[in-house]
Amino acid sequence: MKQKLPEPMQRAFAEAAAAAARGEVPVGAVVVNAKGEVMASAGNRTLQDRDPTAHAELLAIRAAAKAMGSERLIECDLYVTLEPCAMCAAAISFARIRRVYFAAADEKMGAVEHGPRFFSQPTCHHRPEVYGGIGEGKAKELLTSFFKNRR
Amino acid sequence: MKQKLPEPMQRAFAEAAAAAARGEVPVGAVVVNAKGEVMASAGNRTLQDRDPTAHAELLAIRAAAKAMGSERLIECDLYVTLEPCAMCAAAISFARIRRVYFAAADEKMGAVEHGPRFFSQPTCHHRPEVYGGIGEGKAKELLTSFFKNRR
Repeated sequence: MKQKLPEPMQRAFAEAAAAAARGEVPVGAVVVNAKGEVMASAGNRTLQDRDPTAHAELLAIRAAAKAMGSERLIECDLYVTLEPCAMCAAAISFARIRRVYFAAADEKMGAVEHGPRFFSQPTCHHRPEVYGGIGEGKAKELLTSFFKNRR
Repeated sequence: MKQKLPEPMQRAFAEAAAAAARGEVPVGAVVVNAKGEVMASAGNRTLQDRDPTAHAELLAIRAAAKAMGSERLIECDLYVTLEPCAMCAAAISFARIRRVYFAAADEKMGAVEHGPRFFSQPTCHHRPEVYGGIGEGKAKELLTSFFKNRR
């Protein structure tokens, strides 16, 4: 029997699928507060918005900050379908996110377990708890199928 | 005789001073195209916008992408009064910025010459040319005076 994904990760996957349907690289992210209530969710929109910073995590963090009226998302957790890049990892740290749950690792652009490993840097001043591999297979499948269809 | 700063860096300093006047950490950034025309400029707005991602560079890149109608700022250069952090360095790379000119180095949060040294990572797929120390004294003065006044 397959293990059920946490509710917010399921929603992150729905955002990723919606991004793919728009022709965007399929990544989705969700911010929940300490009670588990969804503060914001977003899919990648770099092409649609013509904005190189419009990664799912950055959009979800910005929307959650707006919803909560604070630039610090104290006790909030972030669910994302792909290992965050350096831009998003730093934004996660600045936003004081408590826990990060991600699905697939990203050898090419990831900055949590790969490359700069941002949260392990001495210049990282807030380190979230990190849990990887939550729905990894599903995320890889989504990405592989997306890039296969594009070739 | 003091060397005159390049026009876009002067404008970045004006943005930094305006940020300080708003109570924000004084950092300013300007994006110019290949002809040297200013595409966008911004000062730090993290507190005003209650947005942890509202660093000067990120705002200037987003505004320039909007002005140019493209998520890739081909042949554009960025001037910024402080060494970019990991979030901004990655955004600079994603936006395909050609050259980065920065004033003061940032030992605490910088990600170009410090910490993750993002542009030197194998997970960085576009590396701009980087020129540091352009107006370094002026930038340090602005930051020191800002933090002195806050204590």
